Amino acid sequence: MKIMRKQIKQPGLLPGTLVYVGDNEGVKSTIKLIDYNAEKIIETDVQNPEELIACLKKDTVSWINITGLNDLELIEKVGQIFEIHPLILEDIVNTDHHPKFEEYDDYYYSIVKMLTYNDQKKEMNSEQVSFVLGENYLITFQEIEGDVFDSIRERLRKNKGRVRRENADYLYYTLLDSIVDNYFLVLETIAEETEQLEDHLLIKVTDSSIMQRIHQLKRQLIFMRKSVWPLREILSSIDRLESDLVKNNSKLFFRDVYDHTIQIMDTVENLRDIVTGMLDIYLSTVSNRMNEVMKVLTIIATIFIPLTFIAGVYGMNFQFMPELRWKLGYPLVLATMLSVGVSMLLFFRRKKWL
Amino acid sequence: MKIMRKQIKQPGLLPGTLVYVGDNEGVKSTIKLIDYNAEKIIETDVQNPEELIACLKKDTVSWINITGLNDLELIEKVGQIFEIHPLILEDIVNTDHHPKFEEYDDYYYSIVKMLTYNDQKKEMNSEQVSFVLGENYLITFQEIEGDVFDSIRERLRKNKGRVRRENADYLYYTLLDSIVDNYFLVLETIAEETEQLEDHLLIKVTDSSIMQRIHQLKRQLIFMRKSVWPLREILSSIDRLESDLVKNNSKLFFRDVYDHTIQIMDTVENLRDIVTGMLDIYLSTVSNRMNEVMKVLTIIATIFIPLTFIAGVYGMNFQFMPELRWKLGYPLVLATMLSVGVSMLLFFRRKKWL
Amino acid sequence: MKIMRKQIKQPGLLPGTLVYVGDNEGVKSTIKLIDYNAEKIIETDVQNPEELIACLKKDTVSWINITGLNDLELIEKVGQIFEIHPLILEDIVNTDHHPKFEEYDDYYYSIVKMLTYNDQKKEMNSEQVSFVLGENYLITFQEIEGDVFDSIRERLRKNKGRVRRENADYLYYTLLDSIVDNYFLVLETIAEETEQLEDHLLIKVTDSSIMQRIHQLKRQLIFMRKSVWPLREILSSIDRLESDLVKNNSKLFFRDVYDHTIQIMDTVENLRDIVTGMLDIYLSTVSNRMNEVMKVLTIIATIFIPLTFIAGVYGMNFQFMPELRWKLGYPLVLATMLSVGVSMLLFFRRKKWL
Amino acid sequence: MKIMRKQIKQPGLLPGTLVYVGDNEGVKSTIKLIDYNAEKIIETDVQNPEELIACLKKDTVSWINITGLNDLELIEKVGQIFEIHPLILEDIVNTDHHPKFEEYDDYYYSIVKMLTYNDQKKEMNSEQVSFVLGENYLITFQEIEGDVFDSIRERLRKNKGRVRRENADYLYYTLLDSIVDNYFLVLETIAEETEQLEDHLLIKVTDSSIMQRIHQLKRQLIFMRKSVWPLREILSSIDRLESDLVKNNSKLFFRDVYDHTIQIMDTVENLRDIVTGMLDIYLSTVSNRMNEVMKVLTIIATIFIPLTFIAGVYGMNFQFMPELRWKLGYPLVLATMLSVGVSMLLFFRRKKWL
Amino acid sequence: MKIMRKQIKQPGLLPGTLVYVGDNEGVKSTIKLIDYNAEKIIETDVQNPEELIACLKKDTVSWINITGLNDLELIEKVGQIFEIHPLILEDIVNTDHHPKFEEYDDYYYSIVKMLTYNDQKKEMNSEQVSFVLGENYLITFQEIEGDVFDSIRERLRKNKGRVRRENADYLYYTLLDSIVDNYFLVLETIAEETEQLEDHLLIKVTDSSIMQRIHQLKRQLIFMRKSVWPLREILSSIDRLESDLVKNNSKLFFRDVYDHTIQIMDTVENLRDIVTGMLDIYLSTVSNRMNEVMKVLTIIATIFIPLTFIAGVYGMNFQFMPELRWKLGYPLVLATMLSVGVSMLLFFRRKKWL
Repeated sequence: MKIMRKQIKQPGLLPGTLVYVGDNEGVKSTIKLIDYNAEKIIETDVQNPEELIACLKKDTVSWINITGLNDLELIEKVGQIFEIHPLILEDIVNTDHHPKFEEYDDYYYSIVKMLTYNDQKKEMNSEQVSFVLGENYLITFQEIEGDVFDSIRERLRKNKGRVRRENADYLYYTLLDSIVDNYFLVLETIAEETEQLEDHLLIKVTDSSIMQRIHQLKRQLIFMRKSVWPLREILSSIDRLESDLVKNNSKLFFRDVYDHTIQIMDTVENLRDIVTGMLDIYLSTVSNRMNEVMKVLTIIATIFIPLTFIAGVYGMNFQFMPELRWKLGYPLVLATMLSVGVSMLLFFRRKKWL
Repeated sequence: MKIMRKQIKQPGLLPGTLVYVGDNEGVKSTIKLIDYNAEKIIETDVQNPEELIACLKKDTVSWINITGLNDLELIEKVGQIFEIHPLILEDIVNTDHHPKFEEYDDYYYSIVKMLTYNDQKKEMNSEQVSFVLGENYLITFQEIEGDVFDSIRERLRKNKGRVRRENADYLYYTLLDSIVDNYFLVLETIAEETEQLEDHLLIKVTDSSIMQRIHQLKRQLIFMRKSVWPLREILSSIDRLESDLVKNNSKLFFRDVYDHTIQIMDTVENLRDIVTGMLDIYLSTVSNRMNEVMKVLTIIATIFIPLTFIAGVYGMNFQFMPELRWKLGYPLVLATMLSVGVSMLLFFRRKKWL
Repeated sequence: MKIMRKQIKQPGLLPGTLVYVGDNEGVKSTIKLIDYNAEKIIETDVQNPEELIACLKKDTVSWINITGLNDLELIEKVGQIFEIHPLILEDIVNTDHHPKFEEYDDYYYSIVKMLTYNDQKKEMNSEQVSFVLGENYLITFQEIEGDVFDSIRERLRKNKGRVRRENADYLYYTLLDSIVDNYFLVLETIAEETEQLEDHLLIKVTDSSIMQRIHQLKRQLIFMRKSVWPLREILSSIDRLESDLVKNNSKLFFRDVYDHTIQIMDTVENLRDIVTGMLDIYLSTVSNRMNEVMKVLTIIATIFIPLTFIAGVYGMNFQFMPELRWKLGYPLVLATMLSVGVSMLLFFRRKKWL
Repeated sequence: MKIMRKQIKQPGLLPGTLVYVGDNEGVKSTIKLIDYNAEKIIETDVQNPEELIACLKKDTVSWINITGLNDLELIEKVGQIFEIHPLILEDIVNTDHHPKFEEYDDYYYSIVKMLTYNDQKKEMNSEQVSFVLGENYLITFQEIEGDVFDSIRERLRKNKGRVRRENADYLYYTLLDSIVDNYFLVLETIAEETEQLEDHLLIKVTDSSIMQRIHQLKRQLIFMRKSVWPLREILSSIDRLESDLVKNNSKLFFRDVYDHTIQIMDTVENLRDIVTGMLDIYLSTVSNRMNEVMKVLTIIATIFIPLTFIAGVYGMNFQFMPELRWKLGYPLVLATMLSVGVSMLLFFRRKKWL
Repeated sequence: MKIMRKQIKQPGLLPGTLVYVGDNEGVKSTIKLIDYNAEKIIETDVQNPEELIACLKKDTVSWINITGLNDLELIEKVGQIFEIHPLILEDIVNTDHHPKFEEYDDYYYSIVKMLTYNDQKKEMNSEQVSFVLGENYLITFQEIEGDVFDSIRERLRKNKGRVRRENADYLYYTLLDSIVDNYFLVLETIAEETEQLEDHLLIKVTDSSIMQRIHQLKRQLIFMRKSVWPLREILSSIDRLESDLVKNNSKLFFRDVYDHTIQIMDTVENLRDIVTGMLDIYLSTVSNRMNEVMKVLTIIATIFIPLTFIAGVYGMNFQFMPELRWKLGYPLVLATMLSVGVSMLLFFRRKKWL
């Protein structure tokens, strides 16, 4: 996760100027159109955006999925066809935007973050998905190929569930639901990581990389919260809408997704508490270990330093040291040393250091 | 307590698809029906959910208690009979859901956590209980056998108190009250644990498991709060209801339960403050002990290191060292050593290290 | 202060069942009645609760003070006479309840904590006082003998101030005011304790009991806040009342008590900041002292360890060590040792360790 | 700053009983009256409060400034003349009261803290000023001689600005403005103190008084915030007033003072952040210094301890130690010692400890 | 960044007295006027403020940009011409004011901070810009030469975009937008600094300047937030305006700037979390390093201290020490020493210290 994507836009640009913000410069933009109603479904790879004009007048629901945001011309053309405000187009390509929901006269605009977890790199990836929901169409803008919507495409093709019989708002719901369901998957991976790290913490605490892994988990959880929190508000905005674009009988479903976001927030908070606790345990274990090391040093040093001093005294070369000539001098000194050492040990035991 | 229960649901599933989330896969689902009014009470083990249809038209209150949530078919059938919305059924079997209250046209749906404390493992267990309160019935969904409702069953059988004369809303109240009363029991156990740990802290601080027990207590208190906090909102939602399902004269009782949840929250906050304080005292005691160890090391070392040096000097083998031939050389050196040692001790006393 | 009083109530008890919660099981319950109006005042020791029925119809104000809450029968009888709701009676004897205010049709119910400070044990004691304020009576329930109302009894007897000319609401105000004034006394004692501890901190920091005294102060302040905070809300509830039980010209007085609670909260917050600061200073002083110890050790050790090494070298018994035979060997070595020692000292001085 | 001023009031005193709270018992109370309108201005030293009765009926604006609050009789008399509520009089002499604003029928009452900074003692002093604003008079109560209003008196005398042409509300504004302007002066002194301490921190970190000075700054900032925060609410209350006492065209000025309080709060928060950061830097510098000390000890000790051991080995007096008889024994041992020492140094360099 | 700019204003000054607050005393004030409409554009260097009177009646939009705030007379004259309230003029020259928005009858007044980043000094600079937006004019007050508006001047001259066809409110929007776009640039620099510091942290942790750089980053982020947060409220105030000065079709643009401020706040919060995490990692790495040092000391000391003691024993000069005469005495002692050393090492390995 980069802290901030490179802002190529120069201050003072004309408002509504599209500036692509992101790392996926090389991606070729493609438009995939799925036209469906209860009876039929047609999938098209649209080459020329002009073809999309037809969607506006059809009696089918059109799901226009645009992948790749660096073909600014294409996006401007789509914007003209569906009469999307230039400031929205600016937001669509500004892939660093926070999730939001905006109500316009003929359509709703919303930005949502799609999260995936890269198991190899233990990294969370975030992709911005923009939705423009109109009367009988839904336009989705994604940064790169690959998304979490395949099961929905399958459901559309095989006419499973209610989605083919319902309007564009229901399609919008199923896509949001799919994104949120995917949050659970990511969260599970993080929870597993956390549990692994927790076990690791108990076994091999000296590993100094633990600190960094704890902080990485923390950052991922913060990022997760930053993606989910505004989504909650998007969903509660949808619930409060008074309009024809989102039918009242669809709202129950959006409310269900709303509920899921609360569950996610709950788990995120839970995990943050656990990770913070782990940090405390880590720091305290490190400092306990330090204490143990210091105690061993102290015990060894305080026992042998006085003994070495005694040995030093009788190593002096004075000519007149009567003890040196005593027959029992040596064994007496050894006995003295022993008793000093033992009394030291007893002292430590009384102090409960042993 | 697992951080997060395994989410078996795959992203993109049809909404309203039941997916059991939990560790109690092997539990056989059972339905126990208690039909009562002021005059009579009948208890039945229902084998076939179809039998429940009769409940809708009786003039008695029916308490349908379903234990075991992995027989998804059975739950769907019950859902059809009582016309429960598929999204509610999804929540019933999603046992990781947070407590909530939802108002529907003909019934209320609520999720509550039932807590028990396993004294052996020093672990808190949480079981999700879902309530569907209708005009003359109350359906409760539990994960496993065993609950805190036995005294209420007894009261129903022996016709004690008002419960037999009242409607389903009063039964609903008594069950909630029983769950909340049980929170007090769990909290008492935690409070005892805390007091024990506090005493332990004063006696044998070196025990490095204290840190972990403190964190375990903290986590249990956080979990407790997460269970009780939304319950408060459930109860205040019930208080604001304008409907026939909950009579106004019952509301006073719900308000009393609400009051109890506030008392629980208060005690939980209190305990958290105490546990946090314990952590501080623990860390400070550990570091004080460390200081004591270091001081002993310093005193021993700083006294004997110079003395050993003096001994070393007179252990040198130079041929021309006049002191070595002095008659009083040895006693003089010993006297010097003594005075160095004593002045060191006086220095330490002045520094207040002794 | 116990963390939590023993909850004897078993889960699943009938609602409204009185269960005494507290440590004062042996206290005999007594009822003292003071009947007064502007002209006369009569004090009675009531033996039989039935005598209280007369109070309801008198034109005087009746202050019924019940001490001792474990005679549950007596309390139930009083409850019947004044038609107090069973859930209130449950709260009266549940002496662990948080302060609250409840409006009923014919009376108001409120719980307040009366705090006293035991100077010997340096402990704060809390006693729950319940008030039932009716048209022309005020019932007070206390846990044990002894309260802060003696000056008010005196004022009533000697007809000082307005209290004899006013209604029961004014009596209610004077009692609350007296409880809050007593909070100031307790707070003053805590403030003195804090100042003493602050002075102590500067003189004899090694005292490891300081940590515990700091935490005790912190806990007392938290307890104080928990008692005063809800009292504020009680008083602001009284201010918003639209009823005859509390006259508008009395409200000004309640507002004055409200003001005092704010002043108390302010001082409590102030003291908490100071106590937290003391903790920081304590920890930093302990660690500074540790540093001083370490520095002395380091200086002594780093000076003498090299010197001892030099002495050791010339204590070796090699036959061919030319220096040993030099006439100036010994003085040269001593000079070398001196210069090593002095340069070490200069090094430390440059490092600003001395 | 004392934590809490001595509360002489005994619990259970009659409400409205004046009790002076403060340390300025010996101050003689004086009354200074300034009567003015656009044409004339008369200053009088009032000896007898009765003379003030005339103020009520004059067509001039009367500024009655009372200094010294321990002549309770005088204050009660003033209270009677201007019909001030006894509870207000109680607040006036209770100089530990928090700032507040109260609206009465004929006048407004407000308490404000006047802060000054004693540069010698590096102490902040606080004096309580009470304002009673009536139709054509403003009464100010101060604790001691000396205030920040001299420039306003001058302005009145010389008829500078609008104050002589305006009503009592404008005088009230100028006094508040003057108090708030003085807050800036105090804040500047604290900011300078902070900068000095910050510089000091970089130069001579071992000074253990730094910790206490940091905490003193923190406390002063907390005290400042406690004085300014409620003042903001006073000013926003004045803005919302719908009354004749404060004219609408004056409100703009009060709004300007309100703005200044926000600016003060901002700077206070800023300073608190800085002071907190200083604490962190201080603690970290102390611990870095400790590390440096420990490293020197470790390097010296780990180099010489093995060397001393080698010397010790060849200082043993065994008869059969062949090395002792080698011609090259001594130089070889010296070479060994050198190489051990050098390899130790290289090891430390690789570890980046040097 | 100075904590607080010198407040030259003395308490008790007449309200509305202009006092310049800032460090740019020597800057000569200049007035630059740009008059434009869709057809023409005229730029003038105004010498005499009187010339500005004409602006009020023209049918063009006048952008009056005043640079340098210490010519108080000039500012007062401008104030008279455009009938700006004296308290606003006071705020314009008080360059320490927080950002705010005020609605007056004929114009709006707003204060905004313009931030730039000095790469050499790694310092953030802040300049206060005041806007007075009237019917057909916009007056901007800046402290010094140089701003972020050059691209807008260019756009005006070359008639790019809508700005020439729109009213003064749109010009106001473009200037705000330009200031906010510049915040992104500053934020990017800070983000780069943060990343550099993060990398630095991993390589050369001992650098004690890291702590200070971390705190500097923290302070810059706090300053950033203090500038942006009130700007958000300014923009949302503009959105809620019901007036002709800001047209409804312009509001969409202001809303877009509002959105950008949220994005900035988000990134600022993100960066603060990262910087706080860096501080933790830094402190923990320092303490880990300390532990490593201590472990090496302990291992070396605990191995050699006992060995040195043994050598010392056989260095004693007792006449009767039988071991000294043993043929195998020396090799046996060496073997003992070796085995003691090796068993120590094994002990350390078992303790996982190696």
